[in-house]
Amino acid sequence: MTTETSTESTPLRPETIPNTLTTQLQAVLDGRWAQTRDVVRRQIDEQTLVPQHGLSLADYRERVLDQMKQMVPLGFPAAGFRPEHGGTGDVGAAVTAIETLGYGDLSLMVKAGVQWGLFGGAIENLGTASHHEKYVRGLIDLDLLGCFAMTETGHGSNVQQLETTATYDPTTGEFEIHSPTFHARKDYIGGAAEHARYAAVFAQLITGGPGEEPTGRGVHCFVVPIRDENGDDLPGVTTSDCGYKGGLPGVDNGRIVFDRVRIPRADLLNRYADVAADGTYSSPIESDNRRFFTMLGTLIRGRVTVGASAGAAGRYGLAIAVNYALGRRQFEAPGGEDELLLLDYRTHQRRLLPLVARAYAFAVAQNEVTAELHDLQTADPETVDPKDIRLLETKAAAIKAGHTALAQTAISQAREACGGAGYMADNLLPLLRGDIDVFTTFEGDNLVLTQLVAKEQLTAYAEDVQGLDAVGWVRFVANMATSYALEKTAARQVVQTLLDDSDEDPENSALTHPGTQLRLLRDREDHLTRTAAARMRRAKDDDADPLEVFTETQDHLVKVGQAHIERIVLESFVEVIGRVADRPTRTVLKQVRNLFVYSLLEDDLGWFLMHRHVSVERGKAIRRGVNDLCRDLRPHAQDLVDAFGVPAASLNIPMLGHH
Amino acid sequence: MTTETSTESTPLRPETIPNTLTTQLQAVLDGRWAQTRDVVRRQIDEQTLVPQHGLSLADYRERVLDQMKQMVPLGFPAAGFRPEHGGTGDVGAAVTAIETLGYGDLSLMVKAGVQWGLFGGAIENLGTASHHEKYVRGLIDLDLLGCFAMTETGHGSNVQQLETTATYDPTTGEFEIHSPTFHARKDYIGGAAEHARYAAVFAQLITGGPGEEPTGRGVHCFVVPIRDENGDDLPGVTTSDCGYKGGLPGVDNGRIVFDRVRIPRADLLNRYADVAADGTYSSPIESDNRRFFTMLGTLIRGRVTVGASAGAAGRYGLAIAVNYALGRRQFEAPGGEDELLLLDYRTHQRRLLPLVARAYAFAVAQNEVTAELHDLQTADPETVDPKDIRLLETKAAAIKAGHTALAQTAISQAREACGGAGYMADNLLPLLRGDIDVFTTFEGDNLVLTQLVAKEQLTAYAEDVQGLDAVGWVRFVANMATSYALEKTAARQVVQTLLDDSDEDPENSALTHPGTQLRLLRDREDHLTRTAAARMRRAKDDDADPLEVFTETQDHLVKVGQAHIERIVLESFVEVIGRVADRPTRTVLKQVRNLFVYSLLEDDLGWFLMHRHVSVERGKAIRRGVNDLCRDLRPHAQDLVDAFGVPAASLNIPMLGHH
Repeated sequence: MTTETSTESTPLRPETIPNTLTTQLQAVLDGRWAQTRDVVRRQIDEQTLVPQHGLSLADYRERVLDQMKQMVPLGFPAAGFRPEHGGTGDVGAAVTAIETLGYGDLSLMVKAGVQWGLFGGAIENLGTASHHEKYVRGLIDLDLLGCFAMTETGHGSNVQQLETTATYDPTTGEFEIHSPTFHARKDYIGGAAEHARYAAVFAQLITGGPGEEPTGRGVHCFVVPIRDENGDDLPGVTTSDCGYKGGLPGVDNGRIVFDRVRIPRADLLNRYADVAADGTYSSPIESDNRRFFTMLGTLIRGRVTVGASAGAAGRYGLAIAVNYALGRRQFEAPGGEDELLLLDYRTHQRRLLPLVARAYAFAVAQNEVTAELHDLQTADPETVDPKDIRLLETKAAAIKAGHTALAQTAISQAREACGGAGYMADNLLPLLRGDIDVFTTFEGDNLVLTQLVAKEQLTAYAEDVQGLDAVGWVRFVANMATSYALEKTAARQVVQTLLDDSDEDPENSALTHPGTQLRLLRDREDHLTRTAAARMRRAKDDDADPLEVFTETQDHLVKVGQAHIERIVLESFVEVIGRVADRPTRTVLKQVRNLFVYSLLEDDLGWFLMHRHVSVERGKAIRRGVNDLCRDLRPHAQDLVDAFGVPAASLNIPMLGHH
Repeated sequence: MTTETSTESTPLRPETIPNTLTTQLQAVLDGRWAQTRDVVRRQIDEQTLVPQHGLSLADYRERVLDQMKQMVPLGFPAAGFRPEHGGTGDVGAAVTAIETLGYGDLSLMVKAGVQWGLFGGAIENLGTASHHEKYVRGLIDLDLLGCFAMTETGHGSNVQQLETTATYDPTTGEFEIHSPTFHARKDYIGGAAEHARYAAVFAQLITGGPGEEPTGRGVHCFVVPIRDENGDDLPGVTTSDCGYKGGLPGVDNGRIVFDRVRIPRADLLNRYADVAADGTYSSPIESDNRRFFTMLGTLIRGRVTVGASAGAAGRYGLAIAVNYALGRRQFEAPGGEDELLLLDYRTHQRRLLPLVARAYAFAVAQNEVTAELHDLQTADPETVDPKDIRLLETKAAAIKAGHTALAQTAISQAREACGGAGYMADNLLPLLRGDIDVFTTFEGDNLVLTQLVAKEQLTAYAEDVQGLDAVGWVRFVANMATSYALEKTAARQVVQTLLDDSDEDPENSALTHPGTQLRLLRDREDHLTRTAAARMRRAKDDDADPLEVFTETQDHLVKVGQAHIERIVLESFVEVIGRVADRPTRTVLKQVRNLFVYSLLEDDLGWFLMHRHVSVERGKAIRRGVNDLCRDLRPHAQDLVDAFGVPAASLNIPMLGHH
């Protein structure tokens, strides 16, 4: 067997010289932390940080840990922590750096995210000075490897009902960490199988002061050592290995069972609640429920990062598929040099270009979330309005659900669009596909998050809704005094201006007008939210079973959430396009926005027609419009994907004519 | 690290005793070759023929080859060949056996399919007595391992334009097999990397009789030895290994380059064309084009098998996810034993049950294709109407495209519906996901097949359409004398009766009436086909560019194909339900059929509303109907998936409480 180097090296992708359009588009996508992106891109290029196949789990895990160590000097691991804790205090850079790893190996991205984002984030945001002093420098430098032990075998999305207990013993001044049942086992925990020596453990705190009966105080977070220096389980700790997964071979997911493990009182992360030596419980936040959600809210960075990284991975997959489609010729046309490129086929355009348009819109919305997170988490905590935190949490949930779903679809379609070549591991798409698959599940299952977003809409972010179960929540909505209305006064300035500039009846304004587009998506969300609330109000009837009401309206609720996600993404996108000075770039971006909106409308055309938000005539124009926009954007396809700025090493695959 | 055997073995899935409904439903799904299914089920159970993770490619390939050897005595490998050739002549059993391997390891299914179906099928159907004598017994018994070398690096779907040449040399009485360019390399060929010693090679035949200039005669098939007894490449043959793929690790896909390899004249598979010693070419079929498509048509068995196996794999994935959802409890409801099962959530029902309904409809339609294939291929060739072959080819293409797409979606949704547990390789879903991915691509890319189906509809199976390029084809349609109309007289009896029993305007008949359902799907296909033809007719205009007309209507064409696929599946399903005697079983199957139809209508509601085939009021009833049907079928969910008859060994995974 020999390899056919001479023939195989014919590049399918023509060499392109960066032109103004690519550069301008890339600047829009790169946003505020463009420099951080470039640092990570260079690292991916220089160290070829792309997925591998054929390695053993053990080798892959070692490889990724080594790669992490080489990233420490780049500075961004320190960026996620405040200067007074030992970091450099640039949250946006920390998130963007890990996002950009989505252009390389997602195993590395996840492992870095677990160490610096989740474990580090728990210490940073739930701990106090002594924890920062004890752990932050070490976890930045990787002298101290940690994991984030939240999920349990029996409890994925329902964190408030975790079963692991942390019982305070005032006689020794220790907490006893314990897994009372099989379902309480910590599961799927990245780092728990092999590398982590510490775990940030979420557990039900049980304590009482002198004369008090020990009482459950809800879920709190504790730093628990799990392994000794040789990597052996500490007494009372039993770890095991999840082994092979659908992807992410470089992440050592594992399980942890605690058998009455004792830790000192100081290892409760006590920013929001503390236990005195005598067992007295105290907290600046009175309501257990509000305290829980406040603590959970500080961990939002993980969710933002996962959405962002998935977005990068989706763009990566699309860049591969579009480059392939711009090099590969296929039949159906007269042969020879005039043979059509794959991307000249309308079906191929339709498969890839609407996804490219969505990738643009979501990338821009994601950047906005990262910036808002940065601004909130680097501000003086005293000046932060809790309402803004709550709004950002919902937005992060929305974008996480939307962006990870998009990435999964984009990579699947990219694989299929590359046919047999796309199935070869050397061409990386199958590895990306396997790696991205779990992003729809972790850091909040998408279906759960979408419902959470919808619930916030329906209750207009009411104080006491968080933590209600389905029945309680339905009862709450049913009894709300005011009926819901989309908070129009809160619209950002540019959106309001565009709305004012378009007719109240969208049918009377051109469909290419951004005001019309905004109105259609706002009206849909508004309509869905109002009708969902009306259906829930039936739970007030005497013979109504609130659980049945919930079940009967659950798919409606999901649709509210989806409509909300698409609306806020469009608003971000519109705002950013409005700030682009270069006219040709803005023109292309408007076409991209049109394709984004038209394809969303097409996907939900049944709803728009049925509820008379779109006329039959316009419905037909939408379908034609998607076709026309694909045709019009075809000449810009190379620029559009080059502007993603996927590193050359990541595109160095046989299918694109490289080795 | 220890394992928690005692706790982990708690079965999540309650033990079920087969009841009448399960048995009856299984009988419907198992169909004519139920016994063959049971033989393969037993083999899967006894030998645990399920996907593995963590094996090296080399070990996995050996393992699968061993498993194949142990299947020889089961008899079905011989079933695919006529008794006079050394087989037992039961084509349906041969296809069904390989289909049933979709309940186990798809690597085994594909490798078996390549050896007995594709390689064996080429010998059986394109060869003549000498080939049957020389090869059939050996390939059944695996003394003679072969591969099917059709696809080339530069030519996936366009078989007629393959570049490999087979030039006849009358001076030596040999063909010279040659790969003239890099693009002519045979690629992704199952078996070519390691095990195959022979290849059925598709190549452009070039020959001329005495005094004649050697001429291209189109693609023909040749048996070419590629490896010696030690597994080394024969002189002039260079094989290489595709290595790791997105899945199917047990299949040794590889590449073959021929450098003027000489084979005796007798190794042309000469059923449809022959070359005399002096180079004279002869064929009973005069038209090159018709000969090519006749030859290709005999290979239809591969396409039928791939669709069938994908269907089994999809059912397998759904069985895992539904069983998990019937064991796992999740929050949102009052705790304790009353906590809801996952499958009690409407969103979870909506995710899985419509796919279960589709799996039923497609399984039944697939059985019909297998039976028709059996009947045609076991009949006396003299009595077979070529029109029937053509119709079956189109049907096989339609069901392959629809069934593989369904399987991919079903397994992806199944994985996601099982959350983190679904991502663990031990729980098999990620392996199934990786394995199924390429089924949408091989044996005909789904997008290409869907267009092929649509073209046959538009031209009413006209003689001279096959082999036309896009431009030629558009011109043909534009100039057709008669305009298309769905051949209503050809409807099967039961369909006609139901149509007659329902109002011509579907709005006037109940949506649960099968006649209404059939009419809606028939009307949609009819409407789409007529309008597609009308748009193509524009190519007659003087200033029209036929290629542009093709491009502009390509997405319309795909929609014709999809509408056709769904219509014929419903017709099969309706017919089979009509034959079920047991009333409770029939009642459940009718609900399954309703959910199948309602969810199809919901997915394409925009079209139905826009073209006024469905009123707004009915549109709303459809969405409600999907919800209500999910609720009504929920109590039968266990029976519905138990009736798939997935072997116990295939469901023996930690997530379902087994080891």
